[in-house]
Amino acid sequence: MSQRIDQLMLSMIEKGLDGLLVTDPKHVYYLTGFASDPHERFLGLLLERGEEPVLITPALDAEAAHAASSVQNIVTHSDTDNPYQVLKQQFKGSIGTLGIEKEQLTVARYEELTAVVSAKQYSDIGPLLRSMRVNKSPEEVKRMQHAIHLIEEVLRQGLKSVKAGVTEIEIVAELEYLMKKLGAEGPSFDTMVLSGPKTALPHGAPGDRKIQHGDLLMFDMGVYANGYASDITRTFAVGEISSELKSIYNAVLEANLQGIQAIKPGVTLASVDQAARNAIEKAGYGPYFLHRLGHGLGIDVHEYPSVHGNNSDLVQSGMIFTVEPGVYVAGLGGVRIEDDIFVTDNGVEVLTSYPKELITLEV
Amino acid sequence: MSQRIDQLMLSMIEKGLDGLLVTDPKHVYYLTGFASDPHERFLGLLLERGEEPVLITPALDAEAAHAASSVQNIVTHSDTDNPYQVLKQQFKGSIGTLGIEKEQLTVARYEELTAVVSAKQYSDIGPLLRSMRVNKSPEEVKRMQHAIHLIEEVLRQGLKSVKAGVTEIEIVAELEYLMKKLGAEGPSFDTMVLSGPKTALPHGAPGDRKIQHGDLLMFDMGVYANGYASDITRTFAVGEISSELKSIYNAVLEANLQGIQAIKPGVTLASVDQAARNAIEKAGYGPYFLHRLGHGLGIDVHEYPSVHGNNSDLVQSGMIFTVEPGVYVAGLGGVRIEDDIFVTDNGVEVLTSYPKELITLEV
Repeated sequence: MSQRIDQLMLSMIEKGLDGLLVTDPKHVYYLTGFASDPHERFLGLLLERGEEPVLITPALDAEAAHAASSVQNIVTHSDTDNPYQVLKQQFKGSIGTLGIEKEQLTVARYEELTAVVSAKQYSDIGPLLRSMRVNKSPEEVKRMQHAIHLIEEVLRQGLKSVKAGVTEIEIVAELEYLMKKLGAEGPSFDTMVLSGPKTALPHGAPGDRKIQHGDLLMFDMGVYANGYASDITRTFAVGEISSELKSIYNAVLEANLQGIQAIKPGVTLASVDQAARNAIEKAGYGPYFLHRLGHGLGIDVHEYPSVHGNNSDLVQSGMIFTVEPGVYVAGLGGVRIEDDIFVTDNGVEVLTSYPKELITLEV
Repeated sequence: MSQRIDQLMLSMIEKGLDGLLVTDPKHVYYLTGFASDPHERFLGLLLERGEEPVLITPALDAEAAHAASSVQNIVTHSDTDNPYQVLKQQFKGSIGTLGIEKEQLTVARYEELTAVVSAKQYSDIGPLLRSMRVNKSPEEVKRMQHAIHLIEEVLRQGLKSVKAGVTEIEIVAELEYLMKKLGAEGPSFDTMVLSGPKTALPHGAPGDRKIQHGDLLMFDMGVYANGYASDITRTFAVGEISSELKSIYNAVLEANLQGIQAIKPGVTLASVDQAARNAIEKAGYGPYFLHRLGHGLGIDVHEYPSVHGNNSDLVQSGMIFTVEPGVYVAGLGGVRIEDDIFVTDNGVEVLTSYPKELITLEV
């Protein structure tokens, strides 16, 4: 954690900034190890050239912050304090340019901040933090691997509750119970279980539909564990499915494999998307693959990079992102197969290990 | 919906604003009936003096917006468009002052907005929308009553799964399954089931603890239905509980009743908090009631007003808020009893109807 702050301080000086105010709770967590949801209250990490970092937290979080934060210089404010006045007192020197998170800070907070801080200008540090976060450390990879193991075990155990006549939401209830039972902090997003023709809806919601023979059954889910998210999709056959659905499955599986095979440092993210898309186009389902190939994964379940056809950014070692091609044919059904991958110096390591060949559930 | 837009237009003109840009998705829903989560994409409702309202949505939401929105003048932008350029083309006249939501708009979006819109100044319309939302319409009350009926039915049916040896998270799984089965959109916040000494943690998380005879068992939960939230807490005895726990229960129940009795239009919110607090202080548990008495409820599960001891704002007819006194004695246990109330012209209507006297579960 303190290594990350050191790195951020160095970048700050390189960029000619005199100070940084980090206000996104996820970034405070990333930099200090202190995870919290301050709701409407003020939380900030202040870094100033040549000074000790200061963490400013609501008073009621003081104990938790002391227990978790690598920054032990903690200043608190109560609900009757003006937190911006408390912040003001923490500035040691005069500030020319202050780095802030423009994509996180609201205009209301910005106005309160600029009313008390006399910086000459404000610069966005979002890109700087994004470039740090995209490069996952071994500890982060370990945590994500753990979150992935958890969700794969949830899937394994959860499949036992799949029987003809069981509804989608009953399966969701069982899966979310298993997440908590197995030690996850909770789902990393709304758990999705769709069946039959509903699998053709990329953003469908689980409902009362009963699982039937001949259905496709799609699970898209993940958990948070130690602050990091997992995200996996698998699609199963419930008994014998039609040959059309099998063709779709094979096209998507091929796209998943081709996409993964295309990943290595230095190629564009667009080319990875295209490699997967080619496989689906070749199988004749091009028009039915309606979304990007994947997204970065880490502290957020959707973070940088975005793996889509217009992204000319390069794949870098240390990235973790999803590879999740899908084909959705309205009225018939859809298949998506999603893995989480880690970019190594030479290629790629697939962190998800759940089998991908078509599995038929005998229910 | 269009009535709300008319009212907002009138207020806009009264306040000397030439236009309004509403960007909070919940406020777009409140004003147009179109509910969506645009994630990082741009969504905005533009109101301009003397002009037809325009709804600007991501292209992929166009169909849903046309189906749901009372504003049918819908302009879309694709992922390759600059949405602020699309917005710019919608301004008919020149704008002196533009109203924006400063507590919702980020600095990054504000900079993109002000780069294309040549308004002379920007004024915060948050307080205006807040003052509209606090006055619930009969239709809104009906929706909230429905969300409350749902969660009370969830509690009723969920209690059947409470048996000695069952864990907190198993009960949560059952409750969240029932929410969806009974037709709710989902929980309005993380469902809380705490047992035994854990009930003394106002923000405790459900875990593996098994329900035992002699426990207190606390449920704090709600659902979203038709876009509106419910929120209820009830605390039960599991078999025979100690006389100390019974005293705590009676103090909290008395505080709940006294708080509700103190509500009528024209008194301060602080006085309502104080009425409940007095009952707990009288019973000797004053230091163990650590939080405000309640919060507004509606489209958000926490909204204006805040019912706390320093709030000199007045209770108004049309308000809906929670009354939820609690006593938490570390190591022993805690009780909270939470109702949702609607302020009428003469007094108060309690929307929650689940019994409040101490119920002993024989498990």
